[in-house]
Amino acid sequence: MTLHSEIHEQPQRLADLLKQRARVEQIAAAIQSRAPCFVFLAARGTSDNAGRYANYLWGAANHLPLALATPSLFTFYGQPPVLKQALVVGVSQSGKSPDIVRVLQEGRQQGCLTLAITNAPGSPLAQAADLVLDIQAGEEKSIAATKSYTAELLGIAMLSAALSGSEAAWNELAGVPGWAQEMLTQDEAIARMAQRYRYMNLCVVLGRGYNYATAYEWALKLKELAYLVAEPYSSADFQHGPIAMVQGGFPVLAVAPQGKVFSSMLEMIATLRNEHTAELVVISDNNEALGLAQSPIRLPAGIPEWLTPLIAILAGQLFAYHLTLAKGYDAEKPRGLRKVTETQ
Amino acid sequence: MTLHSEIHEQPQRLADLLKQRARVEQIAAAIQSRAPCFVFLAARGTSDNAGRYANYLWGAANHLPLALATPSLFTFYGQPPVLKQALVVGVSQSGKSPDIVRVLQEGRQQGCLTLAITNAPGSPLAQAADLVLDIQAGEEKSIAATKSYTAELLGIAMLSAALSGSEAAWNELAGVPGWAQEMLTQDEAIARMAQRYRYMNLCVVLGRGYNYATAYEWALKLKELAYLVAEPYSSADFQHGPIAMVQGGFPVLAVAPQGKVFSSMLEMIATLRNEHTAELVVISDNNEALGLAQSPIRLPAGIPEWLTPLIAILAGQLFAYHLTLAKGYDAEKPRGLRKVTETQ
Repeated sequence: MTLHSEIHEQPQRLADLLKQRARVEQIAAAIQSRAPCFVFLAARGTSDNAGRYANYLWGAANHLPLALATPSLFTFYGQPPVLKQALVVGVSQSGKSPDIVRVLQEGRQQGCLTLAITNAPGSPLAQAADLVLDIQAGEEKSIAATKSYTAELLGIAMLSAALSGSEAAWNELAGVPGWAQEMLTQDEAIARMAQRYRYMNLCVVLGRGYNYATAYEWALKLKELAYLVAEPYSSADFQHGPIAMVQGGFPVLAVAPQGKVFSSMLEMIATLRNEHTAELVVISDNNEALGLAQSPIRLPAGIPEWLTPLIAILAGQLFAYHLTLAKGYDAEKPRGLRKVTETQ
Repeated sequence: MTLHSEIHEQPQRLADLLKQRARVEQIAAAIQSRAPCFVFLAARGTSDNAGRYANYLWGAANHLPLALATPSLFTFYGQPPVLKQALVVGVSQSGKSPDIVRVLQEGRQQGCLTLAITNAPGSPLAQAADLVLDIQAGEEKSIAATKSYTAELLGIAMLSAALSGSEAAWNELAGVPGWAQEMLTQDEAIARMAQRYRYMNLCVVLGRGYNYATAYEWALKLKELAYLVAEPYSSADFQHGPIAMVQGGFPVLAVAPQGKVFSSMLEMIATLRNEHTAELVVISDNNEALGLAQSPIRLPAGIPEWLTPLIAILAGQLFAYHLTLAKGYDAEKPRGLRKVTETQ
């Protein structure tokens, strides 16, 4: 039950990390003193999904453009780009993947400011960085990352608040542990819901804006744990071709909290239900969106849009966990995976 | 048969585009005069896959870091990033998608140099740009893009050659139409091969480095035309979790030409065949990689790695086309799709 208990640890871990405001503000000040033109961020797997959140949040709230690194340019091709005026960021729970470390080393060699966001402050990644944001999620024993993901998201969100110097943002951040606790009370309801998907072996997961990251991370948990083919999309990219594959009963999982992209998500959900007769699992705090779903999962009320990814993924983690049990698989030992994947 | 004839038009279209060297060199000179810190590229669907190629090629050959834009920051959120010292690029066959046009307009308003890569030089996208690279693919009637994709890739490759001022690169580019012609001679062999996959309804498509784009584009054709769930991955990301879903007979399509990432692709292919008993369709010019596949597709010999995406995708297009016919679907009228998808 390690995975299940790590999922339930999250409210406390997030509350603990929030106490690191002063440290995060130091990091923000160091970044601002260099006024980078853009962020160059390297990550893999779950941490790459945290990077997707940074892409939207730092873009919208801090006006920083973000490039997701292609580590093979640094390793196999040996042709790293010129990172003039970039902030180079590596995100990794273990801090051990050689390709991510390589990107930071190159950034440092080129004279860029470098930042490691990691759960391992003594790791090679942290050693390669000028600045270290320790996400303090505690040892993560499960192969499937859960608490390290939400801690990475919170670290990214705290850095955003620190960069914008917005007291309102810090006040909103303070609500995160409580909303997380409230979301997790739906554990048993989600366990019952998952039964219906016992024989599902493929699905699509949709999200947009801040929750593009949630779609990717929910899909990744379904793949790692329940061996589903689960393909994540932004609802806009989905319209540009892939929607063709949806027909009667095809399962679509959607993350659609209220906010600026909600109208576009709602329109997509309605089209999928009414024109494509899709099967819908919807995470939302809006009655109309929930009403279109065969399986609605209600978010706690009142979460500001930019923080919904931290809460919505908890529902996704629980759904993936219980579906894994319903399918008779071992959530602690996904086949073919190790905790630390070292890629070049 | 519009789609099939558009696939076969490609060698001639590519040969025609190669004649535009002088125009592309003008564009390159304009870019160099501004010495951008990074490229900010907006695209959707097939054109986004061309953007993935630019990400690797301009990074490796021209040392330009590239950020893929998140258009919803410009449209729904109304919070565009500060694009200081960026070259802002929009890629779109039709030049009509409002969100892509919006990114270029914002770039121009912020004083950035803007470039449209498009098949429609009179389109809103072209009008919003300082520089226009007309890919001259001719009118594309099929809903599934084929010739506009390879023309976008060639435009990106020509711009890379012009930016590096490498006569060797131009000499290599001159080989593209001939290799394309040679690849297309396998049309009938691929038609026979596709029969075996008549009842496949999901698969994974792997590529890495320059051919990460090929994996995405091959998967997109399979989704649009044959209604498959086809999920693209870099072989590195695939190891970080999703490989868990591969077991006996699970179909994996791989693009593995010789070059700098070949050893990593070969290792992955061997693991999938030997440890996961996967079913493999492999596009390669290497006997060992082809020997591991139940369905090998041989690339013409001697293509430099950076140009393999232009040729390998032709095999992918033919495979998707013939599989669509084998499944009894209409390749000209994919359900639920329009030629021009206008997203906000």
